[in-house]
Amino acid sequence: MLSSMKPERIQLFGEGDAPQKPIETLGAKGAGLDEMARLGLPIPPGFVIPTSAYRLVTSDEAGSIPESLKLEIDDALRRLEEASGKRFGAAENPLLVSVRSGAAISMPGMLDTILNIGLTRSSLDGLAARSGGSRRFALDSYRRLLEMFGAIALGLPSDALEAHYEEARVDGFRLRAPEDVSEERLEEVVRALEDELCRVDGMGLPQDPREQLYRAISAVFRSWDAPRAKRYRESEGIADSLGTACTVQEMVFGNLSPRCGTGVLVSRNPTTGEPKLYGEYLPNAQGEDIVGGSRIPYSIARNGTAPGNEERSLEARHPDAYARLSEIARTLEAHFRDIQEIEFTIEEGELFFLQTRAAKRSARAAVRFAVDLVREGRIDKDEALMRVDAASLERLFRPTLEPPTALEARGIKPLARGLPASPGAAIGELVFDPDEAIIRAAEGREVILVRRETSPEDVHGMKAAAGILTRGGGMTSHAAVVARGLGKPSVVGCASVDIDTKSRLLHIGGVSLPEGSPITLDGTSGAIYEGALELSASGALQELDTLLTWADARRRLTLKVNTESPSKLALARALGASGVGLCRIEPLLFPEFRRNAIQRYFLSNEENAAKEALDALELGLRSDLEALFTVDPSIPYTVRLLDWPIENFLPNEPKEKSRLASSLGISEEALEQSISALCEINPAIGRRGVRLNLLYPELASAQIRAIFNAAERSALEAPIEFLIPMISGPTELRLIRERIESEASGRAFRLGALIETPRACLLADRLAAYADFFSFGTNDLTQLVFGLSRDDASALWRDLLEEPSKHTQNPFATIDRAGLGTLIQRAIELGRSKKPDLVFGISGEHGADPASIHYAEELGIDFISCSPPRLPSARLSAAQAAILHKPT
Amino acid sequence: MLSSMKPERIQLFGEGDAPQKPIETLGAKGAGLDEMARLGLPIPPGFVIPTSAYRLVTSDEAGSIPESLKLEIDDALRRLEEASGKRFGAAENPLLVSVRSGAAISMPGMLDTILNIGLTRSSLDGLAARSGGSRRFALDSYRRLLEMFGAIALGLPSDALEAHYEEARVDGFRLRAPEDVSEERLEEVVRALEDELCRVDGMGLPQDPREQLYRAISAVFRSWDAPRAKRYRESEGIADSLGTACTVQEMVFGNLSPRCGTGVLVSRNPTTGEPKLYGEYLPNAQGEDIVGGSRIPYSIARNGTAPGNEERSLEARHPDAYARLSEIARTLEAHFRDIQEIEFTIEEGELFFLQTRAAKRSARAAVRFAVDLVREGRIDKDEALMRVDAASLERLFRPTLEPPTALEARGIKPLARGLPASPGAAIGELVFDPDEAIIRAAEGREVILVRRETSPEDVHGMKAAAGILTRGGGMTSHAAVVARGLGKPSVVGCASVDIDTKSRLLHIGGVSLPEGSPITLDGTSGAIYEGALELSASGALQELDTLLTWADARRRLTLKVNTESPSKLALARALGASGVGLCRIEPLLFPEFRRNAIQRYFLSNEENAAKEALDALELGLRSDLEALFTVDPSIPYTVRLLDWPIENFLPNEPKEKSRLASSLGISEEALEQSISALCEINPAIGRRGVRLNLLYPELASAQIRAIFNAAERSALEAPIEFLIPMISGPTELRLIRERIESEASGRAFRLGALIETPRACLLADRLAAYADFFSFGTNDLTQLVFGLSRDDASALWRDLLEEPSKHTQNPFATIDRAGLGTLIQRAIELGRSKKPDLVFGISGEHGADPASIHYAEELGIDFISCSPPRLPSARLSAAQAAILHKPT
Repeated sequence: MLSSMKPERIQLFGEGDAPQKPIETLGAKGAGLDEMARLGLPIPPGFVIPTSAYRLVTSDEAGSIPESLKLEIDDALRRLEEASGKRFGAAENPLLVSVRSGAAISMPGMLDTILNIGLTRSSLDGLAARSGGSRRFALDSYRRLLEMFGAIALGLPSDALEAHYEEARVDGFRLRAPEDVSEERLEEVVRALEDELCRVDGMGLPQDPREQLYRAISAVFRSWDAPRAKRYRESEGIADSLGTACTVQEMVFGNLSPRCGTGVLVSRNPTTGEPKLYGEYLPNAQGEDIVGGSRIPYSIARNGTAPGNEERSLEARHPDAYARLSEIARTLEAHFRDIQEIEFTIEEGELFFLQTRAAKRSARAAVRFAVDLVREGRIDKDEALMRVDAASLERLFRPTLEPPTALEARGIKPLARGLPASPGAAIGELVFDPDEAIIRAAEGREVILVRRETSPEDVHGMKAAAGILTRGGGMTSHAAVVARGLGKPSVVGCASVDIDTKSRLLHIGGVSLPEGSPITLDGTSGAIYEGALELSASGALQELDTLLTWADARRRLTLKVNTESPSKLALARALGASGVGLCRIEPLLFPEFRRNAIQRYFLSNEENAAKEALDALELGLRSDLEALFTVDPSIPYTVRLLDWPIENFLPNEPKEKSRLASSLGISEEALEQSISALCEINPAIGRRGVRLNLLYPELASAQIRAIFNAAERSALEAPIEFLIPMISGPTELRLIRERIESEASGRAFRLGALIETPRACLLADRLAAYADFFSFGTNDLTQLVFGLSRDDASALWRDLLEEPSKHTQNPFATIDRAGLGTLIQRAIELGRSKKPDLVFGISGEHGADPASIHYAEELGIDFISCSPPRLPSARLSAAQAAILHKPT
Repeated sequence: MLSSMKPERIQLFGEGDAPQKPIETLGAKGAGLDEMARLGLPIPPGFVIPTSAYRLVTSDEAGSIPESLKLEIDDALRRLEEASGKRFGAAENPLLVSVRSGAAISMPGMLDTILNIGLTRSSLDGLAARSGGSRRFALDSYRRLLEMFGAIALGLPSDALEAHYEEARVDGFRLRAPEDVSEERLEEVVRALEDELCRVDGMGLPQDPREQLYRAISAVFRSWDAPRAKRYRESEGIADSLGTACTVQEMVFGNLSPRCGTGVLVSRNPTTGEPKLYGEYLPNAQGEDIVGGSRIPYSIARNGTAPGNEERSLEARHPDAYARLSEIARTLEAHFRDIQEIEFTIEEGELFFLQTRAAKRSARAAVRFAVDLVREGRIDKDEALMRVDAASLERLFRPTLEPPTALEARGIKPLARGLPASPGAAIGELVFDPDEAIIRAAEGREVILVRRETSPEDVHGMKAAAGILTRGGGMTSHAAVVARGLGKPSVVGCASVDIDTKSRLLHIGGVSLPEGSPITLDGTSGAIYEGALELSASGALQELDTLLTWADARRRLTLKVNTESPSKLALARALGASGVGLCRIEPLLFPEFRRNAIQRYFLSNEENAAKEALDALELGLRSDLEALFTVDPSIPYTVRLLDWPIENFLPNEPKEKSRLASSLGISEEALEQSISALCEINPAIGRRGVRLNLLYPELASAQIRAIFNAAERSALEAPIEFLIPMISGPTELRLIRERIESEASGRAFRLGALIETPRACLLADRLAAYADFFSFGTNDLTQLVFGLSRDDASALWRDLLEEPSKHTQNPFATIDRAGLGTLIQRAIELGRSKKPDLVFGISGEHGADPASIHYAEELGIDFISCSPPRLPSARLSAAQAAILHKPT
């Protein structure tokens, strides 16, 4: 409890003993700084006000700092003055501090920071003296303080505050460089800001530095509860109760002179995973200039990715500093056993570290890092498996563009090139603001969001977009970091892009494209193309094979594939499927002539014609299935009998109807009548699944014979498995079992019930008598448990059904544990009670969802079956689930 | 076990000790005869082969009688010969026996009987001697034996067998009376029958009387497993495993001479319940002549119901026999503590009883019997409550015709009159065969089935018909008994009816009506009218009030009514509802202008127009609800917010659409687009219930305000109750609770969740936090548990989902215990675990189903809510459930 905290409890970085739970108490940023101090790395002195204080401050409605806490802060500040050799609020050489938020889990850009706290009118000259007497520098620092304090502590709109300075930079049709804004003009800007702050507050920026500090701390704590931050946590599944710590640290300036600078360093390439230094810096700048993306920075390494500035790279310009950084990056990586992203500032040639944390990384880099760290002996295989986000693996299999050189050889030239901030290809319609992106995406259209630079306000639009393009920013800008986090292809820092928001035009490489025009982004090369280019399959990644081999050795769950296609099955075998868990009959009926046959079967008045149609179908099914089984006769195959409601097979289009009517020799009216007699009000809960097969027994028999005969002709090694959909009671299962037995002629088979009604779960003990295995059809189960049709109402989920302030998943994506989970558990208990060796599986989209796979592991499910592209992710998830469920 | 049974185990009636479980062992008929013998009543001697033998005989595929059983039968037969003083198979004065089935539960007409067993060519003269040397009588008895043995033991079609005799009776355009068929002609008929039996069997009718007996016994046992009997048991919920016993009893003849006769006596009137003798007899006839309906019998009592034959009543003709019968009827009633139906035969002046059993009775009679027996001190109130079939009470409230005199005063004369066999009015289209009745009824049309007479083959058609009219038969004929059992209005014995099956015409009272013409039957008066007459509400029954008052004192369950109509509420209050359990908003939107307003709200592009429509709706709802609440402000009201999917309110008809489009000032295409945007693929699991109310918050608020304001203006005493449909999780309930709170302005209310998704059951503990009560919406729950839409697929139930060979109910009529029941139990456990005083109810159609009410009692449900006409039945069911669940 903070109330019982003694003043000495707030420690300066590196002081005293390391705290027991540093991240929970100090936040990730504070803990990283403390750790760096303990490693002897140069960091500006400072301290952390722990997360417990967040609760104390925000429990007060006004967010004021209690007196006891003020005493503790004052005490820490005194020791900070000692450590820095400067005095807070002194007119000469004043101690200025940054006040930053920092939670246990990183929320990039979501929480607030105020810099230059402690600066007042009376210390402006003292600060000016530090930059060689430049009052312009002191005024600019004061301007930044006013802007940040106004926006964050006083809640003024930051646009309006920043407009004063923006105006001062306007020079005809372009913006002046910051250094070209005159001292007088800056004085005016500062005065205008002071006035504006006074207008809301009466007092304006407090001229008592301590008051500034208290209010900044309070504002930083309160930023945890801003709607933006809440939304972010909701979407990322971060608990609200975590709270944030608050770091108070001496300011160092990267913008005092050309001998200053600021940068972000990543210990290995976070896009490709290559083991070499990566990052950017800006001379004579503050950190926000890099993150905010208002200037395009230079590379740290000589062979950095920003085109044309190799010579300006840190490696080229300051080889000593580069060598120092390399060494420190290695130290930090070894210490934290992970790839680090490090912020640094150089003040008058002196290097300071401001932050280190595990680097955000692309899916590709994550795989490579994990495998490389095992090879380097830093982590074991289990840890490597846990380090990669399983869901992200799918991205590695996404189609990509040919490289620019190959395209150019075919005459396809990019409109422009920027920095390849997040890999992959994206094709979509140009949009210029996040709201428009959301609107068009909701209509099912792919969009590319183009912005000058991005800020946390844009994140919702970035999520909706297929790709992101910015004019400003570098590889570590907000746009780049967020795009990599989201796995969205992104090109940033493309200076030859100009957005005309008034006439809704994008000027790029000499052409002007109106909003809505299709463009193609190559996030891997940084190239931007007009129109929609063709994509091709991406190559495999060697490290991924290694990682997945480790995963296979670790997982307990059997993985199967959902497919009807021989070529996809071949792919799935290569991707790790050990059988076909779900081969549906429906897709085999898609071809025109098959569709026509099934229509003739249902709609013909003549028995002979119906019989002929059915015979043709049987032969066709047999031959398709034979082709599938022949791909690998050594694996088991599960074939599901027809499940869809009849109306899915009936003609829709007037043309198709009139063709069918004339081929059946009946009038269109008669056909229309027959069709409407077969249609249902609620097809999802109508004449489908096992019901359809029992109502049309000859249709069931035709499928069963086709399946048996195909299995026989392709000499399958294991008995063929039948899966019976939409079971709601034991009689149905018994009746269909009898039908299969009557067609089997002694051939072996296994029978599975597709458990997709609540009643099937509740009567699982009675179903077990007739089944060899159960496969949970979690899509339909979810529909029925919620009484919510996926066809109609999945959009309702977000709006109505989720629990606010808690991370809940769309139940059609991740199994709903509270509701559906209970039923599945019950079904397993009941089924095993009657048949201990009953096999359980999950087929359907949940089968590849990592959270659902973890749940399947907990429940003791035997196999999951998913589509081929989701197999790698499922293999990794299954291994992770095994590790978490049964650590070695 | 029969195999260990000693010969003396088959006892003659009245011999030795009474068996321990007489009905299970001897069947109802055998037990009744045994009991009558013990009471000293005159019955022909005989014995019962117990039900255990049924299993023994039918376990053999050929159904042959094992030798050990034959020995036992022979032994019993020997004692029967002694008791009767006649010898089986003797040429002179031969002993003839009837072989009858008889199960523990009566299945009238469903099982087989063979009479005159023991008669052979060689004993014909001996039998003739018995009827004063009439060879015609002996031949007629032999003819009956041949017909029955051929049909039942040899499985020949009875139509074809009976045709021989029918032919002999044809005399121009009419039928000869039996006594007018010449002996020579009868000889021919008998020979033709013998030949026909020989043709199938080689041997024909066995001339060894013992062989006749064994084969008759086997056939009677096997008739238990005939498809007709199985179907009947299935529909009545009788277990197949029960099996039947077989009674072998000396034949007595009601057709030896005019001093003979046969009759059926009911100890009180089974139609009205009046406490006076009732029944019919036929002089010189056998029992089958009454039951089969081929002759119209005379009344037993002088004021019997058959018109014009008072003077021929037993009371008038044989006052002594009448007095004897009255006395014996009283004795049997007192002994069995119930109204008895007694079959008797008079042979040459000597009275024999052939059967006694609890009388089939109309709903009205059942109520009166039960109340009268309590008043007479014979049974207690609990037993009286158990004696009445709750489901039958509804019939007492069916509309009736005015009495014939009142109609005649208005110039409406009947076409004809028959016997009022089963009370109530029925209106429908004329049909002449049961199949046609089934076909038309399946199309939703009401039909009146007209037959010469009915047999068990007609029962399916009788079930489908609204009413039954026969030319032949009396008050105890098959048609009358079955119609009363089914509660179908029926007129029988209407001799002025003639059916022309060829030209499909009904000749009646001088007019000819083609099949399909509408007629009206008055089963209360026996009158038949042309066309469809108007019906009026039926009057209450005093004894019912008494019975229901007893029921109210006994029941634990609270009963409420589902209604929106003030007049229905007034009725429901009179019928015992203590509150409104479900007032739906939807019916209040049915009137044209309301429907138009809701359409304008959903479809108008102009905000003002939508708002105006909503305001109008709010006012309208308020005024309707105020009118409802004002009926009785002292009771609680539960109002359900809108539940239906939007598409139920949208226009369907082209005319309605074009009117709406022009009133909205948009094109029809635009309207069509808006409509299809609001329609869903599976509306039953779409945007409905709470989802609709959360998606259209202003629509929710308008309803909430209307409800609060109506409650306030009508000064309701209890807080108004809101019922929220289609809840699938706690958030929805919380959000709607917040909305109600925000409109409440401090007014008190109670909130109920309509539990109609499986998830609501599974998360009931979390829902309890926001609810004061739960109401189970068992219709939707059933739909979702089975994944079976009631709209589309209820017909599937019979065909596919039920367990054959077991009585299962349609889950939409009776709660499915195995599946849904588990979920409801869970919801109650979870809900009570969090809120011990949570109130539970059932609203929806299961709320009035007796079996579901019994289940509700078991589960500890607090209230049920049903439609007004089902309240009496629900009150009685609730009392019966309380008695069964907690006997005093």
